[in-house]
Amino acid sequence: MKAKILAFGEVMMRLEAPNYRTVAQTRSLDFAFSGTSVNVLSGLSHLGYQTELMTTLPDNSLGYAAASYIRSLGVGTSAVSFDGDYIGMYVLEKGFGTRISEVTYSNRSESAFCQSLESHYSIEYLRSGTHIHFCGISLAINEQIREVTLHVAEKAKALGLTLSFDCNFRPKLWKGGYEEARPVYERMLALADYVSMTEKDAMSILGMETGATQRKDQVEALLPKVAQTYSIAAIAGTLRETNASAPTIQGFLVQEGRVDFSTEHSVAILDRIGTGDGFFSGFLAAMYEGKSSKDIIEWATAAGVLAHTTYGDSPITTRSAIEKCRQNQQVDVER
Amino acid sequence: MKAKILAFGEVMMRLEAPNYRTVAQTRSLDFAFSGTSVNVLSGLSHLGYQTELMTTLPDNSLGYAAASYIRSLGVGTSAVSFDGDYIGMYVLEKGFGTRISEVTYSNRSESAFCQSLESHYSIEYLRSGTHIHFCGISLAINEQIREVTLHVAEKAKALGLTLSFDCNFRPKLWKGGYEEARPVYERMLALADYVSMTEKDAMSILGMETGATQRKDQVEALLPKVAQTYSIAAIAGTLRETNASAPTIQGFLVQEGRVDFSTEHSVAILDRIGTGDGFFSGFLAAMYEGKSSKDIIEWATAAGVLAHTTYGDSPITTRSAIEKCRQNQQVDVER
Amino acid sequence: MKAKILAFGEVMMRLEAPNYRTVAQTRSLDFAFSGTSVNVLSGLSHLGYQTELMTTLPDNSLGYAAASYIRSLGVGTSAVSFDGDYIGMYVLEKGFGTRISEVTYSNRSESAFCQSLESHYSIEYLRSGTHIHFCGISLAINEQIREVTLHVAEKAKALGLTLSFDCNFRPKLWKGGYEEARPVYERMLALADYVSMTEKDAMSILGMETGATQRKDQVEALLPKVAQTYSIAAIAGTLRETNASAPTIQGFLVQEGRVDFSTEHSVAILDRIGTGDGFFSGFLAAMYEGKSSKDIIEWATAAGVLAHTTYGDSPITTRSAIEKCRQNQQVDVER
Amino acid sequence: MKAKILAFGEVMMRLEAPNYRTVAQTRSLDFAFSGTSVNVLSGLSHLGYQTELMTTLPDNSLGYAAASYIRSLGVGTSAVSFDGDYIGMYVLEKGFGTRISEVTYSNRSESAFCQSLESHYSIEYLRSGTHIHFCGISLAINEQIREVTLHVAEKAKALGLTLSFDCNFRPKLWKGGYEEARPVYERMLALADYVSMTEKDAMSILGMETGATQRKDQVEALLPKVAQTYSIAAIAGTLRETNASAPTIQGFLVQEGRVDFSTEHSVAILDRIGTGDGFFSGFLAAMYEGKSSKDIIEWATAAGVLAHTTYGDSPITTRSAIEKCRQNQQVDVER
Amino acid sequence: MKAKILAFGEVMMRLEAPNYRTVAQTRSLDFAFSGTSVNVLSGLSHLGYQTELMTTLPDNSLGYAAASYIRSLGVGTSAVSFDGDYIGMYVLEKGFGTRISEVTYSNRSESAFCQSLESHYSIEYLRSGTHIHFCGISLAINEQIREVTLHVAEKAKALGLTLSFDCNFRPKLWKGGYEEARPVYERMLALADYVSMTEKDAMSILGMETGATQRKDQVEALLPKVAQTYSIAAIAGTLRETNASAPTIQGFLVQEGRVDFSTEHSVAILDRIGTGDGFFSGFLAAMYEGKSSKDIIEWATAAGVLAHTTYGDSPITTRSAIEKCRQNQQVDVER
Amino acid sequence: MKAKILAFGEVMMRLEAPNYRTVAQTRSLDFAFSGTSVNVLSGLSHLGYQTELMTTLPDNSLGYAAASYIRSLGVGTSAVSFDGDYIGMYVLEKGFGTRISEVTYSNRSESAFCQSLESHYSIEYLRSGTHIHFCGISLAINEQIREVTLHVAEKAKALGLTLSFDCNFRPKLWKGGYEEARPVYERMLALADYVSMTEKDAMSILGMETGATQRKDQVEALLPKVAQTYSIAAIAGTLRETNASAPTIQGFLVQEGRVDFSTEHSVAILDRIGTGDGFFSGFLAAMYEGKSSKDIIEWATAAGVLAHTTYGDSPITTRSAIEKCRQNQQVDVER
Repeated sequence: MKAKILAFGEVMMRLEAPNYRTVAQTRSLDFAFSGTSVNVLSGLSHLGYQTELMTTLPDNSLGYAAASYIRSLGVGTSAVSFDGDYIGMYVLEKGFGTRISEVTYSNRSESAFCQSLESHYSIEYLRSGTHIHFCGISLAINEQIREVTLHVAEKAKALGLTLSFDCNFRPKLWKGGYEEARPVYERMLALADYVSMTEKDAMSILGMETGATQRKDQVEALLPKVAQTYSIAAIAGTLRETNASAPTIQGFLVQEGRVDFSTEHSVAILDRIGTGDGFFSGFLAAMYEGKSSKDIIEWATAAGVLAHTTYGDSPITTRSAIEKCRQNQQVDVER
Repeated sequence: MKAKILAFGEVMMRLEAPNYRTVAQTRSLDFAFSGTSVNVLSGLSHLGYQTELMTTLPDNSLGYAAASYIRSLGVGTSAVSFDGDYIGMYVLEKGFGTRISEVTYSNRSESAFCQSLESHYSIEYLRSGTHIHFCGISLAINEQIREVTLHVAEKAKALGLTLSFDCNFRPKLWKGGYEEARPVYERMLALADYVSMTEKDAMSILGMETGATQRKDQVEALLPKVAQTYSIAAIAGTLRETNASAPTIQGFLVQEGRVDFSTEHSVAILDRIGTGDGFFSGFLAAMYEGKSSKDIIEWATAAGVLAHTTYGDSPITTRSAIEKCRQNQQVDVER
Repeated sequence: MKAKILAFGEVMMRLEAPNYRTVAQTRSLDFAFSGTSVNVLSGLSHLGYQTELMTTLPDNSLGYAAASYIRSLGVGTSAVSFDGDYIGMYVLEKGFGTRISEVTYSNRSESAFCQSLESHYSIEYLRSGTHIHFCGISLAINEQIREVTLHVAEKAKALGLTLSFDCNFRPKLWKGGYEEARPVYERMLALADYVSMTEKDAMSILGMETGATQRKDQVEALLPKVAQTYSIAAIAGTLRETNASAPTIQGFLVQEGRVDFSTEHSVAILDRIGTGDGFFSGFLAAMYEGKSSKDIIEWATAAGVLAHTTYGDSPITTRSAIEKCRQNQQVDVER
Repeated sequence: MKAKILAFGEVMMRLEAPNYRTVAQTRSLDFAFSGTSVNVLSGLSHLGYQTELMTTLPDNSLGYAAASYIRSLGVGTSAVSFDGDYIGMYVLEKGFGTRISEVTYSNRSESAFCQSLESHYSIEYLRSGTHIHFCGISLAINEQIREVTLHVAEKAKALGLTLSFDCNFRPKLWKGGYEEARPVYERMLALADYVSMTEKDAMSILGMETGATQRKDQVEALLPKVAQTYSIAAIAGTLRETNASAPTIQGFLVQEGRVDFSTEHSVAILDRIGTGDGFFSGFLAAMYEGKSSKDIIEWATAAGVLAHTTYGDSPITTRSAIEKCRQNQQVDVER
Repeated sequence: MKAKILAFGEVMMRLEAPNYRTVAQTRSLDFAFSGTSVNVLSGLSHLGYQTELMTTLPDNSLGYAAASYIRSLGVGTSAVSFDGDYIGMYVLEKGFGTRISEVTYSNRSESAFCQSLESHYSIEYLRSGTHIHFCGISLAINEQIREVTLHVAEKAKALGLTLSFDCNFRPKLWKGGYEEARPVYERMLALADYVSMTEKDAMSILGMETGATQRKDQVEALLPKVAQTYSIAAIAGTLRETNASAPTIQGFLVQEGRVDFSTEHSVAILDRIGTGDGFFSGFLAAMYEGKSSKDIIEWATAAGVLAHTTYGDSPITTRSAIEKCRQNQQVDVER
Repeated sequence: MKAKILAFGEVMMRLEAPNYRTVAQTRSLDFAFSGTSVNVLSGLSHLGYQTELMTTLPDNSLGYAAASYIRSLGVGTSAVSFDGDYIGMYVLEKGFGTRISEVTYSNRSESAFCQSLESHYSIEYLRSGTHIHFCGISLAINEQIREVTLHVAEKAKALGLTLSFDCNFRPKLWKGGYEEARPVYERMLALADYVSMTEKDAMSILGMETGATQRKDQVEALLPKVAQTYSIAAIAGTLRETNASAPTIQGFLVQEGRVDFSTEHSVAILDRIGTGDGFFSGFLAAMYEGKSSKDIIEWATAAGVLAHTTYGDSPITTRSAIEKCRQNQQVDVER
């Protein structure tokens, strides 16, 4: 049976000052709607998977526009609740060279999603899927949505769905720091089959330790233990180097006690946000297609590399583009 | 001594779908920053007055962009506090013909202004002005900012500033309806020297009654009483008719127990929001320049008419444009 | 059981010179994807109906962009075939005042849809719906798609679906004129339950005659006969007058031998194309909701009026906007 | 022999704040290149005439862009001199409703054209044409270009070309007022075969008097005398009424001592500037095609009406659009 | 006598998703008109040559817009036929980093040009030129335009014009592969004086062989033989390396049995399409100006390098920019 | 006492072809208002300083738009005179790769500023400041503004203000070359406390000589002498290398007979113009904050580096961005 993949999480309106300007330098903002859940499903939808988003959007023209946008990405919105008044927003001022990108958030805590109740998410929709994806941000914003998220995850597990989870730890959102986050993350990791995390998460959130000082060594020392501890089928992530003249990324996959690393790619960056979601959607697709662990991590990494080269947070990369990137093809124009 | 005019109130970010589209039909939004206080000061600044805005803006790139925009209107921002995280936002989908404009608000209650304290507004800035303008919306959003607003008004009065007040009653913001609003409005009206209101406000907010059925008769029956009751030097407002083939507006001025009506203008509408602020800034300017009551109301109404013909909420009309409009000059192109 | 509405027809890429310019006066074109089938379904989707489009799109980035756009309108694309190379396109130069809008077509005859075969349209999708809509243009472009269209219609009828048909006669597409069109239209009319046509179609395509000279009289003289002859449950259409100072439209509904006329509306035109589809989607929705014949035609006409006031060919009007238009509400801004 | 029409005059860069904004409200300006000479030739080119512009443009990227733009209108630039540093510019803030359009000029007096010498205009190019058009603005800017203009006109006359002249009196450019202008205009009128002027020009520039008080009576009283006095074959112009609810224009043609008036058209205005040039290019085309005097003035007026409905100063109206406007055809969309 | 250069070939409308987006990610497309013939003439026009395009454009607003655009490039359109209904179009989704640019064509085979007859191309226009350029794409699209192209080339040769030819082999357009193309190309090569091709064309289209494995060696081994076999005065082309960290190009010129190579340039790419036409127009200009073979190939290569740095397919580089690029001048801003 | 910094100089309207196009390739231009004086004050304003511009702007909508824009940068316009008709303009065609940026000026000599008189600059405004900045361009345009500039500088010195001066030598503006410029520059250097110049200025304008051949050696050999000769407290400047694969800049500071060099930064260029002003505003801020000479030059250089990465001529960099750049922090996105 082909997978039908759900994701649970917040949709945000991304507003962006065009052409590398600041907000004060422009009179219009480009916008899109995104979020980890939307992004992972968009990536999977562009690779041919059937997807449905579980979220709550405000019952007003911004909520309808968000749903319209999400459908345009090929992601189903039948499971979306329309209730509440606000949508989370963030404003992006894209950096250039040594100038750093800046993101300003509007008040998320009052958003329709972050105020939603377990009753907004019908068990019927959970039943219709085979897999569901969660994100660490849903665990962070406020206690209400944290509990709703964990309950939905538990229900999904009970119904037999496969669970994936992206740690996505945002320090600013956890007033109580790692101490507060640890038990929450542990509850989610115990439910998850596939996890997106790095060795840094293991050390900070989970408080693990290793004598290794190189990042790859730390991955090998820590992440197989994480997988074992929480009975996670596979952990995938990327090592990102930005201190070189051009940034590079290298993917890793932890499976059955072993770590595979992908080849290292240097990346050209059109749009940085959401590239981790591109990586993880490539990982899930490759996993579902029964590729070898080496192929899985190469495919996932190529998907992540390409997510840097497309506009917007939500991956839109096609299967054929991933294949060409994997094989490092050099073509000027496809015509 | 020439007037230096302050205004106290919220700054909002106005986001607008361009070219009469809905949000779902576009991928970019035009934006500006406005609010009754900004608008009245912008109108006065374009007529040559020195102005200063008293508000609180978030201490982030949206707050800085707002201040930059407000200065571009000629309004001073020395008295602005930068504190807090959020700015109020609204999204405008402009109507066309029989299609009605729609406005969707983001969460205002958590905005930097609506969370601000009396301590954000230094008495030193109040002392620097000769006049201060308030707006009914500041009384409505939450109890905290309501009290802050009234305290600032009382302090200003005590310091000898002239006070103006725009009733601007928004039913959606008063959960307790007119009953809740009445005592609050009465407190503010008792402080105000110049007030923008209509006969409808007298009947609804203040609960006054009259047997008259025509709007002009109601104005004459009720508003001189309001002026007398609350010791208001002058009340000004407009009667707006939209059921005719073209909308018309007619201004009225209540002063010394007498009502003057302006000539009736038909209006071409480029941008509807903020036109009342255009009217009131024209009224204040004419008042400060010692015009006759007939001239004052003609001038104010012309300023209001022109505010319909310019982009944005904030009036930008010049003195010479108001004169031409008053005299109903017909010119194609000024060259 | 709630209706699930299908539509069969071509999707075109609409390219438009912005701001009333000609193509030679601009360096960019706005675009959207539309077509009678898309438009009727978009109208119904915005009124809450579940919809699915049956068409063939090219298997390339234009076809994928079209599907993405159609989904953004809330119309399902599960039943879309991706095959072939081209999409029909047209370029719109919008008129202004006495300057007439001009449309330039690209080659439609070779489009993926116009080259599609019956085998592209699975009976399984037909079975999933309760209603299917067709358009006269599909009968006109070339013989292949004409036969495919008629076969799909016959299959749908045989499966028990309700059929609607918009005559949409385009003289330029019928080289053989009305003589060539008549038998084809008669075949389709005999299958249809609901038809969009006017008295002019009866006289020209069907060759009917009447001594009446006024349009309303002609409607009453001819269209009940058409309904009877072809066993059509209801015929709806609009009378459009453009020679007055402002254009007006008035809807009519022919049902059970009787004609009902709506009130006459004057229309403000933002976008003229697709307004008939707005009318007809309003008609179908009102019909499915069991309104009285008077209410149906008022509702349909209001939907048509509002379709003139929104950007694009595809209606996006909400239920509440139609109600307000029906009741002729005069509001400036909804806030 | 078909006419080959030259025009002598300044090219200006027109910069325009988009969407009815002021310069202070925008961060980009639309631009085009125009001028009476460019406009009349553009109108004629779009009606099928061969045209060549005689002017001087700066020898820099603005000059080259101007030439590129002018060629895009179908006007030849072989006779353009590239010399000097500056191009005349003006910035347009388009009005709306009662708000009046405003034009701000940059320094024209130093422009490449206004600094050009007779030697910039080769007699060889004059010889290649059959007709040449001049404009009153060239007589006004400074003494140098005034003399150059008159010399070129005299040379053209001596070579047997037909001369047309648009009075285009701009009060701001004549420091010495009508007294200064009169002898200059008389010199040009004595050379001209076809003239664009109104009864107001006769009274002001030429100082003529009449007891008539209605504009049409003044036209009849004065302009046949002007034609006779200066041996002008035909004078054409329009009477424009802007005090009505919608502006109207009516054309008149003075020929062989008789005055013909066109039907009166109400005009919808997309772009006001250059409409007189649209009228005059329609007049010249109709004249060259041997139409009757009644037809000439109807055609010219329709061309003028349509020039209000197209973007930009330069007329781009086609023959078929003029025919439809003349016959007052009411069509929604040409498709 | 100065050369007057004609070119024969198709004009296409290029539509482009802006800002590196895909079509599905945008709501407007930038456009231009181009084609090898337009591009080579645009390059020559910007270097001061008189040029005329021989093509057929549709007799509708797209055809007129194309002609207007082409004139804006400085290319004459007197020899253009307006007949037929369609213009060839392609949609460009520009790549970024490892993401490859994609081009989607509309149906070219039915375009006005590809349906044109020999009778559309008057011998009078051929007579007016001294040189005519052809492109291999005209030989590929369908048999009709292939024959028309060859007949026009034969006529031009018979009239004594110099012929240039760009091989421009597009595998997708030749269903019969190299076997089908070879005799057609040989017919054209036998007519041509100047040819744009590479060693790959010699091996594939002409089926030539060499033991050399390095590209420069292959050029030296094969292309002088091609020149000799078909009596071609000069062959020019570029070697492009994209597998290095930055792409590089190096030009070569085959003349009198000798091969000259230019210095190697690394290229920054703003717009990749049409850069070969930039190279070849630089080559033709340098050739006509009697430069040495070393200078010719340096000039041509610099022209090609600069064509990568300008927007659009059509080269717009000036003589002075080519000189600076040749001398590798490093300047920030010319002011 | 905190510094209040004035600057005296011309404001220009910068018009720019967007997206690396030429003027001939676009139909709209982005614009901003800038000038060395505006830029230095903008940089200082964004670092928290109170600033006032002394200039003359035309009394028309371009002048008002300029003032509005300047206020939006945080720079005060109370000291601006509105008089005269024109504003200086320049049009920027931004280069790409080996294509060089080109700037085309409009006539500056007639601008409101360049025609202004000493009487336009009130001594009262000079008194209100503690520091005033001048630029070498004001000395170059015409004799009138040169004298006005020197007199204002002398008055400011007499009033006890600190003076800074940017040499900014523009060869095209000095018809008499270095000989003409030398005595003028010497007069200004004798007044200045802080100067922006390089070793090239010392050699060319001041005619100084050294046997050193390396730029850093020349700086050390010459600039301490300059400082001593003219009693300049500090001289700062940058050494720019563009012949490397990526451009680099390195700042230097001459103070108390010693030269400090900053670390060398490679720069990514979004907008080249005004980067020297970014450097100098960083220098002044660091100077006023009492940093060590090493820290001053590091801070100034970081400010200059960041000025390359922001849109527009006027620096908008914040204190925290400069700190991050100094410490070479590598962050993707600040969120």
